[in-house]
Amino acid sequence: MPAYTATALAHPNIAFIKYWGNRDDVLRLPQNGSISMNLAGLHTHTRVSFDPGYEVDTFSLNNQAQVGAGLERVSQFLDIVRTMAGKNWRAQVESANNFPTSAGIASSAAAFAALAVAASHAIGLDLTERQLSTLARRGSGSACRSIPSGFVEWLPGDHDSDSYAITLAPPAHWSLVDCIAILKETYKMTGSSEGHRLAGSSPLQQARIASSGARLDRCRQAVLTRDFDALASVVELDSNLMHAVMMTSTPPLFYWEPASIEIMKAVPEWRRSGLPVCYTLDAGPNVHLLCPETSVAEVRSRLEGIHGILQVLTAAAGGGAHITTED
Amino acid sequence: MPAYTATALAHPNIAFIKYWGNRDDVLRLPQNGSISMNLAGLHTHTRVSFDPGYEVDTFSLNNQAQVGAGLERVSQFLDIVRTMAGKNWRAQVESANNFPTSAGIASSAAAFAALAVAASHAIGLDLTERQLSTLARRGSGSACRSIPSGFVEWLPGDHDSDSYAITLAPPAHWSLVDCIAILKETYKMTGSSEGHRLAGSSPLQQARIASSGARLDRCRQAVLTRDFDALASVVELDSNLMHAVMMTSTPPLFYWEPASIEIMKAVPEWRRSGLPVCYTLDAGPNVHLLCPETSVAEVRSRLEGIHGILQVLTAAAGGGAHITTED
Repeated sequence: MPAYTATALAHPNIAFIKYWGNRDDVLRLPQNGSISMNLAGLHTHTRVSFDPGYEVDTFSLNNQAQVGAGLERVSQFLDIVRTMAGKNWRAQVESANNFPTSAGIASSAAAFAALAVAASHAIGLDLTERQLSTLARRGSGSACRSIPSGFVEWLPGDHDSDSYAITLAPPAHWSLVDCIAILKETYKMTGSSEGHRLAGSSPLQQARIASSGARLDRCRQAVLTRDFDALASVVELDSNLMHAVMMTSTPPLFYWEPASIEIMKAVPEWRRSGLPVCYTLDAGPNVHLLCPETSVAEVRSRLEGIHGILQVLTAAAGGGAHITTED
Repeated sequence: MPAYTATALAHPNIAFIKYWGNRDDVLRLPQNGSISMNLAGLHTHTRVSFDPGYEVDTFSLNNQAQVGAGLERVSQFLDIVRTMAGKNWRAQVESANNFPTSAGIASSAAAFAALAVAASHAIGLDLTERQLSTLARRGSGSACRSIPSGFVEWLPGDHDSDSYAITLAPPAHWSLVDCIAILKETYKMTGSSEGHRLAGSSPLQQARIASSGARLDRCRQAVLTRDFDALASVVELDSNLMHAVMMTSTPPLFYWEPASIEIMKAVPEWRRSGLPVCYTLDAGPNVHLLCPETSVAEVRSRLEGIHGILQVLTAAAGGGAHITTED
């Protein structure tokens, strides 16, 4: 095994207040701040080995060698790490998710958070959490939120160095669970990186951005005070706002499937009937149902009545990205 | 039969550029202009009989006597007509739709257009088309668009007297057909009058309004030049924009059903594959598919593959509201 090796683990995260649209697509500086929760139990595990003798970067995902755009994105990210370290060594990157890729869970956040931690450690950099979050952001914007632990806020910043995420509260702060209804996809989706570039073509994006500060305040306060009702209303509104922008961009992006709509219409009814649960959707058809741990069984049970759900995964608030000692 | 009687017929209309939100809820002055097509074949038929001897207004719809809010709205509308005529006679109003009420087709536009024509004629007023359109608007905003013939634009105006609709082109101008996919409704809908009042609570409404002028120009030009592709893109965008506002108002309004989403995702694919068709949805789950008459059979055939459609109605461009001579 090469000497310059490290392995790291990171969780995906679910955004309560969404990130959609950049002020700078290269630096991935977002147009608005965002708030999320890391998803315990789901993770990406990544080993990076730098070796002065390697001639090229290689990248395998779930034991499949990657070429083309996937490899190129990893290699460009490693270039940033190499520049920071003043080294030009190539690397072998092996990454694996413990959740099915076919589940349609956005994996780039966990992937680049784990890669940032593993690669920087392997090459000998000793980065702070803030520096790791800043670095991870360069690979995938929302990856910066998978670096700190628990409930997290991404401070949008003005420059590369001040756009990073911080912990609002640790995982134990609130026993909230994300019940992820995995849906069958019937149409090919547009990737997030491309989607962010389209955000500005919606006549609604600027209004979404202009009103985001008030939602961030409401959401942060709801998290800090564990106020589920307050969280529910702002989380659903913010999800609807992001999808409103998506579906009014040119070309329009529709991530929802028929079952997504059915769940989105049912959940507020369930809440009105006394069950604490709310929905949010990222750039995909899966519906994330947030609820207190005590309501998970009832939420699962109600989801059984809805056609088109392949499986339901559950995840409590997870920790931050970190080095593992398996190697 | 009383001496002061008249019967009128009016068609519903489908909006290409939507009306959602008022500057004045009482006068129903809209925040933006709109463009629509009257729907031939579908109609409301209304007979109004004023009689100095009647003590109260009565109103029957499809042979069912109406009381409460339905009667009150008709009676308040008749008050406007009575004031214009300087009479205080009460009236008997009998109205019937030739389309099933359960089909969920918004009937208030046709209803108040027919009522405006019949009531004003019965009471002895001789109104111009502009005056009739202005009057119909007081009963239901979009009713002003069912007064003129064919393809119609509602000029939003600043006052009661200059907010009315005009014909852009007669029905024979373009053999466009509206194929209305009638869907099963699983949730109770919020009525349009209440919905208009909620529009301002969406952070997106002002941006929708601010950008509406450009869409009106694109749509008007597409209608006048019979440019289907240009019509398709602006009609779908404008429908998505209205629903974006609806779903981000407080409380949010979701008019879509699972099958609505399925159709909305399929139609642009059909168009890319060469079939000229586009979608638009009013404040309800039904999907209106606009296409040239020559594509109706193919559109119907493709809709057969989609679950959740109860029936498909078709309507070409229809004429304006007018007195009938049946009485």
